[in-house]
Amino acid sequence: MARINENYLKLPGSYLFAEIARRVSKFKTENPDADIIRLGIGDVTRPLAPAVIESLHKAVDEMGQAATFRGYGPEQCYEFLIEKIIEGDYASRGVKLDVDEVFVSDGSKSDVGNIQEIFGIDNVVAITDPVYPVYLDSNVMAGRTGEYKDGRFEKIVYLPCNAENNFVPALPKEKVDMIYLCVPNNPTGTTLSKAELKKWVDYARENDAIILFDSAYEAYIQEPDIPHSIYEIEGAKEVAIEFRSFSKTAGFTGTRCAYTVVPKTVMASTAAGEKYPLNKLWNRRQTTKFNGVPYIVQRGAEAVYSPEGQKQIRETIQYYMTNAKIIREGLESVGLQVFGGVNAPYIWLKTPNNLDSWAFFDKLLSEAHIVGTPGSGFGPSG
Amino acid sequence: MARINENYLKLPGSYLFAEIARRVSKFKTENPDADIIRLGIGDVTRPLAPAVIESLHKAVDEMGQAATFRGYGPEQCYEFLIEKIIEGDYASRGVKLDVDEVFVSDGSKSDVGNIQEIFGIDNVVAITDPVYPVYLDSNVMAGRTGEYKDGRFEKIVYLPCNAENNFVPALPKEKVDMIYLCVPNNPTGTTLSKAELKKWVDYARENDAIILFDSAYEAYIQEPDIPHSIYEIEGAKEVAIEFRSFSKTAGFTGTRCAYTVVPKTVMASTAAGEKYPLNKLWNRRQTTKFNGVPYIVQRGAEAVYSPEGQKQIRETIQYYMTNAKIIREGLESVGLQVFGGVNAPYIWLKTPNNLDSWAFFDKLLSEAHIVGTPGSGFGPSG
Repeated sequence: MARINENYLKLPGSYLFAEIARRVSKFKTENPDADIIRLGIGDVTRPLAPAVIESLHKAVDEMGQAATFRGYGPEQCYEFLIEKIIEGDYASRGVKLDVDEVFVSDGSKSDVGNIQEIFGIDNVVAITDPVYPVYLDSNVMAGRTGEYKDGRFEKIVYLPCNAENNFVPALPKEKVDMIYLCVPNNPTGTTLSKAELKKWVDYARENDAIILFDSAYEAYIQEPDIPHSIYEIEGAKEVAIEFRSFSKTAGFTGTRCAYTVVPKTVMASTAAGEKYPLNKLWNRRQTTKFNGVPYIVQRGAEAVYSPEGQKQIRETIQYYMTNAKIIREGLESVGLQVFGGVNAPYIWLKTPNNLDSWAFFDKLLSEAHIVGTPGSGFGPSG
Repeated sequence: MARINENYLKLPGSYLFAEIARRVSKFKTENPDADIIRLGIGDVTRPLAPAVIESLHKAVDEMGQAATFRGYGPEQCYEFLIEKIIEGDYASRGVKLDVDEVFVSDGSKSDVGNIQEIFGIDNVVAITDPVYPVYLDSNVMAGRTGEYKDGRFEKIVYLPCNAENNFVPALPKEKVDMIYLCVPNNPTGTTLSKAELKKWVDYARENDAIILFDSAYEAYIQEPDIPHSIYEIEGAKEVAIEFRSFSKTAGFTGTRCAYTVVPKTVMASTAAGEKYPLNKLWNRRQTTKFNGVPYIVQRGAEAVYSPEGQKQIRETIQYYMTNAKIIREGLESVGLQVFGGVNAPYIWLKTPNNLDSWAFFDKLLSEAHIVGTPGSGFGPSG
């Protein structure tokens, strides 16, 4: 008799953003005239940059002619895009990468969800709390946790980030093997300085742990001391995998392109204690279960690195950061305690009168027609 | 200490098509002037249909304007495409599906590789032999097999398909839980009749097994009695998940779009014996680890269902089938034993003089500058 993967049944309720969409859809049906302001999911609203549009059209034309048509490409990505990524996002910051250390994909959500597959099932996972739910959920589904009890999964090491510690998580007291860091943070909008991040790299090196570093929001960093890539920290190329996305950098949420960096020097162990490169495992995972990003989309992403593309995306990012500033200052002016919004587009606020976060979500939706995101969807500290 | 997933180490060598690419690349470097004919991977060569190109351009324009820009879409797909799929591929053959039974993705390779995640780790897997390697490899990576010994993985039930049984696999003698069927078959190009497929549906119903039915090549079917969808068989909606792709139907190998049908009536069991719908599990998997197909690509796929789109893709399919006919007849005329090429674009041939399949691959490449696909890459019967 075919059995299901019962780990899925440990997950409470539906995926956070799907649940938000369900509640909004219900409200919209009951209040068809309401003019809803959607701040619920970290989506973009500005159109793709003109340089990207031009490049997409050109690639579509290529796909319509036999001489320039492209079928299957390399699962990892065409070199024209990988070279632009390495030059534009890394070499420019003094980080050297080889072309076979970068894997382009349809989204960081996919990569962040799939990366745990290359790790052993008994690894101890640490996540900051609150945090983007995919890190946790993908590990629950894989069986790397126990049951869900009192708002927490057994076996997961939660690293609280809150107003008390200024959203800087303390190093774990217990030994952990896989550490998910999201910097700048989704959802709190807070960041880590180079010195703070260095503590994590040092911890990972001393404990043979791997850091899974999600920097989807690095393009929003405004202050000088905040690292854009974990590889700006000495030793990180031995212990860190980095996830980047065009979603928030260039408005690709509906266009789908991201990439993951797995330096060939990052190693984990076999049960026998032998070191094995994670690059080789991720390459095997991607070549077996993924067929690359659409050629058209790769050409669109390439245009992000042109001088016009860079200028255009920076203008759009400034637009979002101005929005963040307006929201932050507005909330502060009515006396709310807020965080983030300086090096990331997200604002994190303490609900007034200790309202619980789904109750505040419902109140905000029904009274102000604004879709927020309930903190509890991101972990017990949320 | 972070551990790796050691199941990966059970896999012999690299992924088949990556290994083919490596050998071809080496040959090309050593023989830069050789005019290579690439029949190695099932890729397409004809450009996208004009109706698709037109639709892609229109969608690119929409993405460049704030009023029509699209950010995150539903993970499963926009309804405009799902409705076309249901109407064009299923209702037209008397199969009724709901919109929440169809999940659009970036490729059948992804879906076929990921689907095993929703199943229990102790399920017994049966695969036809030879067969597309992803079914087996993804289960090896997940730990659903033992070691690789004498060309076979322990715990896997191989169902030989060869000239002796006319490529119709016999029902397994042992009890199996998950059965991968690829019809029309990649790589042999052979098919199953409705009567033959019905035996499998009946087996699955009697044994509470699930059929994972890959019909990526259904658009190539020319003969009348060959089922295009497993749901044409009575009872299949209780036991089958179906995978379809635009790759071979509409030349989308470099454009990336496919879909998977999981009827709400398909159930598997918990350890306690309770039935649970696989639709719900796949929905959770996709909403947690996938963010939908690019909006632009969804619009391109939609155009496949327009009257012009249908006419154009049928002409292209006829072009490939004419190629298959030429190859088949050419090989037969020199006395080789060949199969397939009637309801699928693939030709399967018995190597002359009992040459082993990689040796024949190398001979074909070095002497005739033709890239074939070695049968052994598809299983012990290959």
